[in-house]
Amino acid sequence: MSQKDIAGLKVDKDRLMKDIHTTCEWGKGERWGDAETETGMSRLSLSDTDKQARDWFHETTTALGCKVHVDAMGNQFAVRPGLNNDAPPTYAGSHLDTQPTGGRYDGILGVTAAVEMLRVLNDNWVETSYPTAVVNWTNEEGARFPKSMTASGVWSGDIPLEDAHNLKSVIPANDTATMRSELERIGYLGDVPCSWEASPMAAHFELHIEQGPILEAENRRIGVVQGVQSYKWFTVTVRGRDSHTGATSFQHRADALLTASKMILASHKIASKHGALASTGILNLKPGSTNTVPGFVQFSLDIRAPQDDTVNTTEAACKSAFSALAAGEDVLNIQAGCTPSSRQCTVDWHTDFVSPATHFHDDCIASVQAAAQDLCGSGEVSGRDIGSWGKLMTSGAGHDSVYANKRCPASMIFVPCRDGVSHNPSEYSSPEQCADGANVLLGAVVRYDKLRGERGWESGP
Amino acid sequence: MSQKDIAGLKVDKDRLMKDIHTTCEWGKGERWGDAETETGMSRLSLSDTDKQARDWFHETTTALGCKVHVDAMGNQFAVRPGLNNDAPPTYAGSHLDTQPTGGRYDGILGVTAAVEMLRVLNDNWVETSYPTAVVNWTNEEGARFPKSMTASGVWSGDIPLEDAHNLKSVIPANDTATMRSELERIGYLGDVPCSWEASPMAAHFELHIEQGPILEAENRRIGVVQGVQSYKWFTVTVRGRDSHTGATSFQHRADALLTASKMILASHKIASKHGALASTGILNLKPGSTNTVPGFVQFSLDIRAPQDDTVNTTEAACKSAFSALAAGEDVLNIQAGCTPSSRQCTVDWHTDFVSPATHFHDDCIASVQAAAQDLCGSGEVSGRDIGSWGKLMTSGAGHDSVYANKRCPASMIFVPCRDGVSHNPSEYSSPEQCADGANVLLGAVVRYDKLRGERGWESGP
Repeated sequence: MSQKDIAGLKVDKDRLMKDIHTTCEWGKGERWGDAETETGMSRLSLSDTDKQARDWFHETTTALGCKVHVDAMGNQFAVRPGLNNDAPPTYAGSHLDTQPTGGRYDGILGVTAAVEMLRVLNDNWVETSYPTAVVNWTNEEGARFPKSMTASGVWSGDIPLEDAHNLKSVIPANDTATMRSELERIGYLGDVPCSWEASPMAAHFELHIEQGPILEAENRRIGVVQGVQSYKWFTVTVRGRDSHTGATSFQHRADALLTASKMILASHKIASKHGALASTGILNLKPGSTNTVPGFVQFSLDIRAPQDDTVNTTEAACKSAFSALAAGEDVLNIQAGCTPSSRQCTVDWHTDFVSPATHFHDDCIASVQAAAQDLCGSGEVSGRDIGSWGKLMTSGAGHDSVYANKRCPASMIFVPCRDGVSHNPSEYSSPEQCADGANVLLGAVVRYDKLRGERGWESGP
Repeated sequence: MSQKDIAGLKVDKDRLMKDIHTTCEWGKGERWGDAETETGMSRLSLSDTDKQARDWFHETTTALGCKVHVDAMGNQFAVRPGLNNDAPPTYAGSHLDTQPTGGRYDGILGVTAAVEMLRVLNDNWVETSYPTAVVNWTNEEGARFPKSMTASGVWSGDIPLEDAHNLKSVIPANDTATMRSELERIGYLGDVPCSWEASPMAAHFELHIEQGPILEAENRRIGVVQGVQSYKWFTVTVRGRDSHTGATSFQHRADALLTASKMILASHKIASKHGALASTGILNLKPGSTNTVPGFVQFSLDIRAPQDDTVNTTEAACKSAFSALAAGEDVLNIQAGCTPSSRQCTVDWHTDFVSPATHFHDDCIASVQAAAQDLCGSGEVSGRDIGSWGKLMTSGAGHDSVYANKRCPASMIFVPCRDGVSHNPSEYSSPEQCADGANVLLGAVVRYDKLRGERGWESGP
């Protein structure tokens, strides 16, 4: 195909939106607007509704002429043959699971746009040099089984299969299911080993909503994603002493919740100072009674920054500050005006997850940028300024592309989402924005395939 | 009986401790020490174990010659006849339910000491002028059915019966039981109306552990309780917006948990300033995922002070501060060093419970003080200084005596508890301290009965 032929390939916006909204019937969440599709999503990984979405993926891609296989983590790989089928496919993909109160675009757009890519290739009788494929990764959200991007992590060799299989469901509380038992229950425990060797990829492209406000605020259509910021997840445990709220003076308390509140505030101030992000999304306490000062609090802490060093510095500063606050010492003037207590709390940290900064592959980034430029029009391009249509970006969120990038060249495409809102029922990208992203995904994959053909790459550069 | 005869009446310490520890087999909680009885209690109101404790109360007091009746809230009244049985009894009592992670003394000591009082009266063939009685109040803790002192509140006419019956169990989460359904299930929905008219009291005395550190710190044996401090309970709801922790800059967040943390800290600082107490014992958030900034937080706020005015002033200052913090404005320098955000949270208050300051009855307080003085020895007594053995006190915690005091003269007796710890498995008062309290309870009831006889009071002063 000529560059012009490639640029002429366009997705069918309505067909794409129909796929998104049809599949979002399974696992529909909270309503946020009046229109029929203005509801969020609650499609937890390996739930009954996730099975429905998976069945749709299998049937649709099979009907489009793909050979579909499932691995031991339930990852679904749909491969459309190319001219040379001895080499690994060029992949597009994302995930179909959602947060418990998530929206219709996070992950879902990436998979449905990749399926739309298959349709466009078929409609235009395009024969790619190598196979072209779509992947649906299992449990990217880590919401139900608490490890993000579990199944791409097993595929890349970073997470042991057994650890992943043994992950316990945390939603609903008291669920006794594990990933393995749920994979078996819904019939998605595949017989192919979960690994980059058993399901090799020549490249991995992922379209995703930005999940942040930058593209919308700067009125840009496409984010060309060069990498993913560094992040670490911790569980922080504060232990004090249960005591009666009415009969225990401030001087005699070891109030684990007051102390945790100071720590959460301190983490925000410290991250602000270092140009990092620190966030707490989960907090549990015991015993949980209006008239009992809690003696036990456990909370999550998520620290992120573009550079690993910044995350580590912020972590160290938080560790020092939390220890001081637990001991009743002042940090950042937070204690000013508090009643000093003769009793202390203790604090313990557990590191749950470390994801160093990811730098995507230049060839993939270049393919995304070229496809976006074809779509949006040219303009002066130099350095990080790629024209008013788009922006070179670092992703704030982790994605399956982080693990994919460890075993093959990868990059991502971002499209704006309204108000930067994500992990929320009202998450929204317009049909035009979705189609923009799908067109760039299609263009990037076809371009990369062409590059492979030209350079004679079998399995990658 | 002469004063000397009264002073000669003494409880049997070992028998009392046996009652405490035997009944604490039902609903045993967390272990905190090596000895057999070193476990806490988890005897939620109207649970199966609460029924076992109630059955014990019924059988024991019946065997001691009492006439026992149960009212529509499950309150148990055991009446030992006196010389004149046309007048209401002088009561001693407390409650047998506990916090989910409570101890062996809160409430339990008050009921078992009252039962021990009956035994001592029987052993010594004491004929009181009027009936002497013991009451076991239902759901004092308000832990399972979230309204403290529910059943004494219905008895006094402050809480409508229907509201109390319809209270839903909050432990375990998702329990669908109501107070009424549980009263029926365990067979304690009595046929006597729950009211001070149907079960009149001439006076109400309650022995309780202090639940605070003062008596122990000052090495005093008995607290003569003159009243209960004022308190209000609120539910505070903070609404922000769910957003992705990695992709949403601090500038674009409406972080309900960070805001709630600032509010909890502010409430502590404001209460410190006003000489009040402010405490948060419950905090729930949504959606509850490590990588989602919570858009919804709800927490309890318990404000207490000896005077109603102080509580109201603290409440008003917290309301103003919380509104400012939700709007991103500074209060008490808490925002210093925070990243300002273009998005705000909202805050709503709901008042769950108001308990104005309670002043107990002089005659009851005098009876307690005289009984304590007999036990502990005399000494110079003037004003609030009642000798080194004891202290005139205001209770920090609410008790059934608050409601009882609305319909009859009342007072309370405090004994020290180790480290001031309560609402905790390791709550502890020594056998000697328990016996001290039981002796004063016995002495106060007998003294008050004598006072009634002397003054010819039928139903109270």
